[in-house]
Amino acid sequence: MRVKILQYLRETDGFVSGEDLSRTLGVSRAAVWKCMEDLRLEGYKVEAVSHHGYKLVAVPDKLIATEVQHGLGTRKFGCHVHFFDEIPSTMDEAFRLGMNGAPEGIIVTAESQTKGRGRLGRSWVSPKSKGLYFSMLLRPALSSSEAARLTLLSAVALSEAVESFSGLRPLIKWPNDLLLNGRKLAGILTDLRAEVDRVDFAVVGVGLNVNTLSKELPPEGVSLKEVLGQACDRVGLLREFLRAFEKRYLNLKKQGFAPSLEEWRRRSATIGRRVQFEERGCKREGVAMGLADDGGLLVQLDSGETVKRMAGDILLEMKGKNA
Amino acid sequence: MRVKILQYLRETDGFVSGEDLSRTLGVSRAAVWKCMEDLRLEGYKVEAVSHHGYKLVAVPDKLIATEVQHGLGTRKFGCHVHFFDEIPSTMDEAFRLGMNGAPEGIIVTAESQTKGRGRLGRSWVSPKSKGLYFSMLLRPALSSSEAARLTLLSAVALSEAVESFSGLRPLIKWPNDLLLNGRKLAGILTDLRAEVDRVDFAVVGVGLNVNTLSKELPPEGVSLKEVLGQACDRVGLLREFLRAFEKRYLNLKKQGFAPSLEEWRRRSATIGRRVQFEERGCKREGVAMGLADDGGLLVQLDSGETVKRMAGDILLEMKGKNA
Repeated sequence: MRVKILQYLRETDGFVSGEDLSRTLGVSRAAVWKCMEDLRLEGYKVEAVSHHGYKLVAVPDKLIATEVQHGLGTRKFGCHVHFFDEIPSTMDEAFRLGMNGAPEGIIVTAESQTKGRGRLGRSWVSPKSKGLYFSMLLRPALSSSEAARLTLLSAVALSEAVESFSGLRPLIKWPNDLLLNGRKLAGILTDLRAEVDRVDFAVVGVGLNVNTLSKELPPEGVSLKEVLGQACDRVGLLREFLRAFEKRYLNLKKQGFAPSLEEWRRRSATIGRRVQFEERGCKREGVAMGLADDGGLLVQLDSGETVKRMAGDILLEMKGKNA
Repeated sequence: MRVKILQYLRETDGFVSGEDLSRTLGVSRAAVWKCMEDLRLEGYKVEAVSHHGYKLVAVPDKLIATEVQHGLGTRKFGCHVHFFDEIPSTMDEAFRLGMNGAPEGIIVTAESQTKGRGRLGRSWVSPKSKGLYFSMLLRPALSSSEAARLTLLSAVALSEAVESFSGLRPLIKWPNDLLLNGRKLAGILTDLRAEVDRVDFAVVGVGLNVNTLSKELPPEGVSLKEVLGQACDRVGLLREFLRAFEKRYLNLKKQGFAPSLEEWRRRSATIGRRVQFEERGCKREGVAMGLADDGGLLVQLDSGETVKRMAGDILLEMKGKNA
């Protein structure tokens, strides 16, 4: 009902009379009034004028279901939104939903995370209402070794979404970071529950610095606002991502990972660059030559030997410093 | 206290007087009496004779902590035992413990499972107190693609444990079944929670038909009792397995998977045999040539091409029928 009234308000330019709403929806005037109160509690600004009725003046800048789903147009992703004002981690909540049998496409969004996670047990700084922090539940027909490529696919979709939304084209640092001007804009994390040869479910999580201030970011971080010089609509960017992701994800059944890996290569910040990494305590250096079809990074070491890196970190060597 | 009294009773040939127990342990006679009642409730038969005291007559045939840990001698595995008379699945309970941060080495045992799981979503028949049904929590420093080899390592340890316990030498059908006379004695399942490039925790579960009657088994199943012609001590077999498993598992840090894979090859029911499998709806046949170092099965197809199978099922072709 609340959703219907909101839609009604959105579609009307001027005022909507309470009587009209009550008649159209077949509910009492009191029920209409109650809905308006609920919408206001969620952050919607609804003007009410005697003898004129109600008018929607402003929508909240929050990752709530009614905002995320407005004009979304996806088939699966975002069709259920679990919103939290504050949560330890959207990853863990989405994992819990997966354990309880929730369907594919559910997303968990939060205005802030108290224990936002990055890769390899690191933390992700999640200041309130500044960034996009969300996780999606996936139930793909993949083995756990294939699932590494979900991170790559998600990175491509996120880079595409940022580009079509802002005109900026973030590059992808293998395997899961988005960079703008060499600084970290976003990170992507994939958690699995799997039998070793079959994924039960996966949770893909995104942390993206949208309107985060530089003083709130780690030294290597960057936000869209910093680069664009103006605040961005987080909800609009989330919708853009959900559409881009769903398109690539649903295409897996037809074309597999190949098209996403191809696009990953085009958006790569890593290929062709000198890289450093550690292997069993031993520092190695070389040039990143390409992305293997299984998602591994091919590195030609200075010794001439070519190795494939499947996990862990790499450092991109820069003039005089590392990123 | 219960554990101490039990140990006291075990170590004494004749009767132990309540007064001695009360003095040695520094508790009241009433407290000693209460402990004896608790032990009886758990299935221990404790004889009590006036002016003589207590005597342990029989121990329960149950996978409870006091039995599993008696003379166990491992450092980690089995040091915590969560016992259930009946549970949906030991796998799911161990996974829940893992989610809550439980330490490596905890095992979950059950007398019966109402939703015992096999690989690929199949069920595992778990008649009450007839088989071994248990799961172990592992926190290995592995990537999720390496974790497939945990199943192989566990299969080796289980085959070794059955051999040293009964003299029978079950062969391993790739990847996770133990066979006796070509019929299924045991299955092993590995569930993961992982970031794609790092395992958070793994749960390895075993279902083994010990004293199960043939009418209780699926047609392709077999139990130790059927082959040996006599009932076996399930708890003793579990202890044997925990020791064999821990030895191989703790050795991973030093020697990796190589020694276990080598032993797997020696105990294989698959290598050298004609096999069938399906790949994307297409039936393929060939000869299993060997086990790759990543745990995949190398199959030379009848076309001459050699392929590596990482997941799914294989059928072993037999004279006239398939197993």
